[in-house]
Amino acid sequence: MIRPGDKILIKTDDGEFEGILMQRPEIVPGNALIIKLDSGYNIGIAKNKVRSIKLIKAGKPEELKRPRVIERKNLPKITILSTGGTISSRVDYKTGGVYPALTAEDFVQSNPEVLDYANIDARRISQVFSEDLTPKNWINIAKEIHKEIKKGVDGIVVTHGTDTMHYTAAAISFMLQNLPVPVVFVGSQRSVDRGSSDAYPNLLTAVITAARWDGAECVICMHQSTNDDINIVMRGTKSRKMHTERRDAFRPINELPLAKVDYRGNIVGSADYKKRTNVKPVLNTKLDEKVAIVFFHPGMSPQIIENLIKQKYHGIVLAGTGLGHVGHYLLPVLKKAAKAKIPVVMTSQCFYGRVNGNVYATGRRLTKEANVIYGEDLTPETAYVKLMYVLGQTKNIEKVKEMMTTNLVGEISSRTNPLSFLV
Amino acid sequence: MIRPGDKILIKTDDGEFEGILMQRPEIVPGNALIIKLDSGYNIGIAKNKVRSIKLIKAGKPEELKRPRVIERKNLPKITILSTGGTISSRVDYKTGGVYPALTAEDFVQSNPEVLDYANIDARRISQVFSEDLTPKNWINIAKEIHKEIKKGVDGIVVTHGTDTMHYTAAAISFMLQNLPVPVVFVGSQRSVDRGSSDAYPNLLTAVITAARWDGAECVICMHQSTNDDINIVMRGTKSRKMHTERRDAFRPINELPLAKVDYRGNIVGSADYKKRTNVKPVLNTKLDEKVAIVFFHPGMSPQIIENLIKQKYHGIVLAGTGLGHVGHYLLPVLKKAAKAKIPVVMTSQCFYGRVNGNVYATGRRLTKEANVIYGEDLTPETAYVKLMYVLGQTKNIEKVKEMMTTNLVGEISSRTNPLSFLV
Repeated sequence: MIRPGDKILIKTDDGEFEGILMQRPEIVPGNALIIKLDSGYNIGIAKNKVRSIKLIKAGKPEELKRPRVIERKNLPKITILSTGGTISSRVDYKTGGVYPALTAEDFVQSNPEVLDYANIDARRISQVFSEDLTPKNWINIAKEIHKEIKKGVDGIVVTHGTDTMHYTAAAISFMLQNLPVPVVFVGSQRSVDRGSSDAYPNLLTAVITAARWDGAECVICMHQSTNDDINIVMRGTKSRKMHTERRDAFRPINELPLAKVDYRGNIVGSADYKKRTNVKPVLNTKLDEKVAIVFFHPGMSPQIIENLIKQKYHGIVLAGTGLGHVGHYLLPVLKKAAKAKIPVVMTSQCFYGRVNGNVYATGRRLTKEANVIYGEDLTPETAYVKLMYVLGQTKNIEKVKEMMTTNLVGEISSRTNPLSFLV
Repeated sequence: MIRPGDKILIKTDDGEFEGILMQRPEIVPGNALIIKLDSGYNIGIAKNKVRSIKLIKAGKPEELKRPRVIERKNLPKITILSTGGTISSRVDYKTGGVYPALTAEDFVQSNPEVLDYANIDARRISQVFSEDLTPKNWINIAKEIHKEIKKGVDGIVVTHGTDTMHYTAAAISFMLQNLPVPVVFVGSQRSVDRGSSDAYPNLLTAVITAARWDGAECVICMHQSTNDDINIVMRGTKSRKMHTERRDAFRPINELPLAKVDYRGNIVGSADYKKRTNVKPVLNTKLDEKVAIVFFHPGMSPQIIENLIKQKYHGIVLAGTGLGHVGHYLLPVLKKAAKAKIPVVMTSQCFYGRVNGNVYATGRRLTKEANVIYGEDLTPETAYVKLMYVLGQTKNIEKVKEMMTTNLVGEISSRTNPLSFLV
């Protein structure tokens, strides 16, 4: 039997391919074989194209030397929940394969420094690319975090793919309120088999944050700059992935970082976050998934919103221009949405700054004639997640408006620090 | 007869309102009276709600003292084309009304400093909030600029509302290639009746840029910081409005500013732009407007793309996550789009950085199975405008792919300067 790690020769209709058979990520549906070529590239081959497979050399995944983890009494208890993404992987250098590193022991083997800061338990709750996560996954993650907090841990680290980490962190912020301890999301922008990988420093600082930070919020912990020296701790509802591949891609939006943490265990907080207290977390996973984000663009057809009305969406988040505007040609269809009692929340495609429906005539008409809800300084992403949460609690349009424009968990700043632009 | 500028008392079903009757902006359709209250706020009153209007005190707009503009032989010739937006307005302090300042004389009266730099001709080509501009307006603007260049001017300034200025500047970049002189878009984030208005410094530096810059590209000229000292000159295809209200809201994306210009007439260019030469501009206004931007969000229904296929869109720009990903649940509908020969261009909702379909399995499947075109380091906005332009030239899917991934006018950087992130 051919196993992942074996060197094989595959003959197909399109030619012959020699390489190491890779463990197929669970997320890849269908019947594809993935092999790593000598060039280092991976290719996928549909099973129905395979004519024959020949074993060249049997591979064997490197045995893990599992260190015995001894619990140390004076250290905080941290649970690491792994959801997938590059950060939760371990490269087996013999086979070239990427294997999930999911047990506490695996984790500790890769990152022995963390033992200086915490007693660590770890488990995998999913293994999904973050772009494939849906609100259903968020609910599962919220429940798992809740379970851990009820066990009495001192902090949670959630390892996550970076693509949608800010959506998930925002979702958890709403679904799991009244946190007694911090929930720290962390990912990596470069895979662990690259010299420039940020996986280890990010994991280390995330554990330090979960163990030592005096805050009790749902946050994201990622590189402050491209240097491997300091990570910033950002509120989950107020951050975005702002760069496709840089290690410092995650930035706080419309506020400063809540804390900074270095790789020697120091953490310095700002003045502006909820502190750890002995409270019970409130889990509320009611989400209404029938919500969409619409990114306005000049000349945009009203049909795009018309479609959502027809398909009985329960809420729409508009990423408008500037202070929260769309072309006047969308006013009739937005009035129609108002008539159908579909809340429309205005945010800005600028991302930084606050929307305001009172400055220009366009905004005043959207507010007065189409009952558009101006979403303060929410990002479109956070408004999207929040609208799902709010619609899970009430369908009353006035109540929705009130909740959307009221700060629930730190997602709306009463005033924007001018120093927070492009930080 | 009641005239704009008169102080009046309006009785309506909802109460009485006293204030100065404002000139109704052309853009406001329907029958509303706008009055400026003593508080300084403007309110609109539907005419059918008006029971009576009483004249309190007749107003009279301030007479403009038109200075005689004397052409000075040694100065470059600049044309200012006004399209609307806050920047092209003049406040009449007697009546509180905002009037268009559109003739050369009006402009010079408000900004006499510009006469030190250029002989100026100015005309209004539209008076529209920029969120209301559509591709049809872009075509008109391109034609008007072309007309002026053919007359032999040394530079063009286009005053424009800020909300969609980067879309228009990108559109002009594609429709009017081979520029012999610079085309400088400029707007203001604060209206001229506010002490913090950026209208005058922006106009002044835009004129300096049009007159003195050695570059011949379509650019945006806006504040470098919140200080009134230096403006940056950004490529129209590589900039975005990144803040709802700051004066330094416009930022270059994935490259550094092309030039910096101060209010004393100094301009310093970078190494990276096309220089003025004695070439003929090429006007090509064929745009295919049947294009939409779709902003991916976790759990997004495939229906949203299905709708666009059914409604026979000719092209779709996806703002995906990270390096250019969407959930695997969208793969079937994207394959359907490919089958229907609808080009789908992938960009990133990170905005900064470059998309890459080769790093992760998701990208490879989108490229190989759904023929998704990876749009290099284009912003979603520039990709949107470019796809309209490209589809105006060809419907051949391979040709579209080739044009979308080839740099035409500076919109694609071959490599991204690491210093350009969040600049």
